[in-house]
Amino acid sequence: MKIDFIQVVEILGTATFAISGASMAMQKKLDAFGVLIISFVTSIGGGTVRDVIIGNTPVEWLRNERMITVILLSSIATLFFRKAITQLSKTLFLFDSLGLGLFTIVGLEKGLAMDFSPGICIALGTITGCFGGVLRDVLLNNVPVIFRKEIYASACIAGGALYFLLKAWQVESHLAQIICMMVIVVIRVLVVRYQLTLPSFHLKNDKHET
Amino acid sequence: MKIDFIQVVEILGTATFAISGASMAMQKKLDAFGVLIISFVTSIGGGTVRDVIIGNTPVEWLRNERMITVILLSSIATLFFRKAITQLSKTLFLFDSLGLGLFTIVGLEKGLAMDFSPGICIALGTITGCFGGVLRDVLLNNVPVIFRKEIYASACIAGGALYFLLKAWQVESHLAQIICMMVIVVIRVLVVRYQLTLPSFHLKNDKHET
Amino acid sequence: MKIDFIQVVEILGTATFAISGASMAMQKKLDAFGVLIISFVTSIGGGTVRDVIIGNTPVEWLRNERMITVILLSSIATLFFRKAITQLSKTLFLFDSLGLGLFTIVGLEKGLAMDFSPGICIALGTITGCFGGVLRDVLLNNVPVIFRKEIYASACIAGGALYFLLKAWQVESHLAQIICMMVIVVIRVLVVRYQLTLPSFHLKNDKHET
Repeated sequence: MKIDFIQVVEILGTATFAISGASMAMQKKLDAFGVLIISFVTSIGGGTVRDVIIGNTPVEWLRNERMITVILLSSIATLFFRKAITQLSKTLFLFDSLGLGLFTIVGLEKGLAMDFSPGICIALGTITGCFGGVLRDVLLNNVPVIFRKEIYASACIAGGALYFLLKAWQVESHLAQIICMMVIVVIRVLVVRYQLTLPSFHLKNDKHET
Repeated sequence: MKIDFIQVVEILGTATFAISGASMAMQKKLDAFGVLIISFVTSIGGGTVRDVIIGNTPVEWLRNERMITVILLSSIATLFFRKAITQLSKTLFLFDSLGLGLFTIVGLEKGLAMDFSPGICIALGTITGCFGGVLRDVLLNNVPVIFRKEIYASACIAGGALYFLLKAWQVESHLAQIICMMVIVVIRVLVVRYQLTLPSFHLKNDKHET
Repeated sequence: MKIDFIQVVEILGTATFAISGASMAMQKKLDAFGVLIISFVTSIGGGTVRDVIIGNTPVEWLRNERMITVILLSSIATLFFRKAITQLSKTLFLFDSLGLGLFTIVGLEKGLAMDFSPGICIALGTITGCFGGVLRDVLLNNVPVIFRKEIYASACIAGGALYFLLKAWQVESHLAQIICMMVIVVIRVLVVRYQLTLPSFHLKNDKHET
């Protein structure tokens, strides 16, 4: 039952990432192949960067038929039913947040399994959750949106830090994972609901330099 | 004799990819070092991405003196004789298509040797053939051209799919390889000759949304 | 004593790369998280690309607490004291050049340890020294500056080539390393002092083509 829940979240998260990639690619007027590639990169980019830098190769998606099928179907569905899909934006936003939480935990656990320090584990979780979007934005020739506007990565970092706190308090591992995922989802929802942003230190007084 | 043919195609393909990279870098007014790097990235980028994600490291070009020499000479030649070289555009286009076909087959075979599924093998072939150009475009700050205008990747995918069909029909391996390469070349030539493009689903009726 | 010197240079170089990344990110008005990521990418990007293509994974910084601490502190300091820091520009330029020299030698030695050819070792040194800046520029959506304006990579290549000359003349290894580092620093200082650039072959006579 617990495994089923994780699998469902993974499928929903992967599909949502793929849909978000496909939508942005279509806004940039890419052709069908471009849309497909951007879908894939958005969904699997974070895990790929993580696997490549920790040396976990062949990277995971090469052996994960289910994930590839989900991405393919999601991007094709977006190509044909984009209008209907974008009308589900609130549902998609929830799935996206769930996916972000799950992928963060997955990356963090991979780091723990290789005995990295807590800081590095949190970094690997954040990379897993966020770098698909970074690669998507680089390929679409944008400055990555998570570097500018959204407290997206910060939710991953907060959730990851909490995980180590909970472990220090001897909270059971599965429970800690679920709490962290939920915290990431809640932070993300609150951020978007109240339009919070990180400060962007761009020094309004640059002109007054002597 | 068969090996010689493959080697000749590999050299011509590598050189053409390098020349195309160098030409685009010169159009963007890069300096000599920038031109050199873009040449290399265009030629070896696809194989490097493939090798990195399947864990085939050190990546191939680090041990392949011949390929490096070919790229160096091609980019230097482009720096000094660009005008003469660009007048060979039809010849270069043919070499480029041959290279694309060959690199696709090389990537596909690497996937087969590691027992990946047919879909993943085709993806690895396409990455090998196309991602050098993707990296080139990212470094030159363009949206990758294969995501927008050219049926370039589609030729790789079609050729790769045909390969598995031919194998299912028990066609001998070397023959299947040569047929696929030729099919990729022919698709590419027809596409450019008749200016075909993939549909680009950008929803002309976006404005009419209710 | 010798090790101490290397460690001091490594810390200063890493910090300077992080500061340069943070400053450019702030100019682009990224938020605090974006500034942090660009700092990291600028500092560790070159070594990461090198480690990934030679298969030296997990990549080095994942196990290097000191380097991560240095980067974190440098980027946070830049966020809060940017004006004070940028007034140290001459000092920073010197540290940056020292860092470039050191990272080049580190990359080159990694290549030697894996028995790569001299050309590949020099390439690995150049990648280690320069590709952090390339990744920074790609993420900030600029054409990498080293491809356009600065003789930055050329200093690495010249220093690397000199290293093999010195070795051929049987100069002791540590001495050769220090000479190369100094040569890289001197080239870099002279280049900036006299505003030298590589030729940029962009064919002023493009319009006169027949």
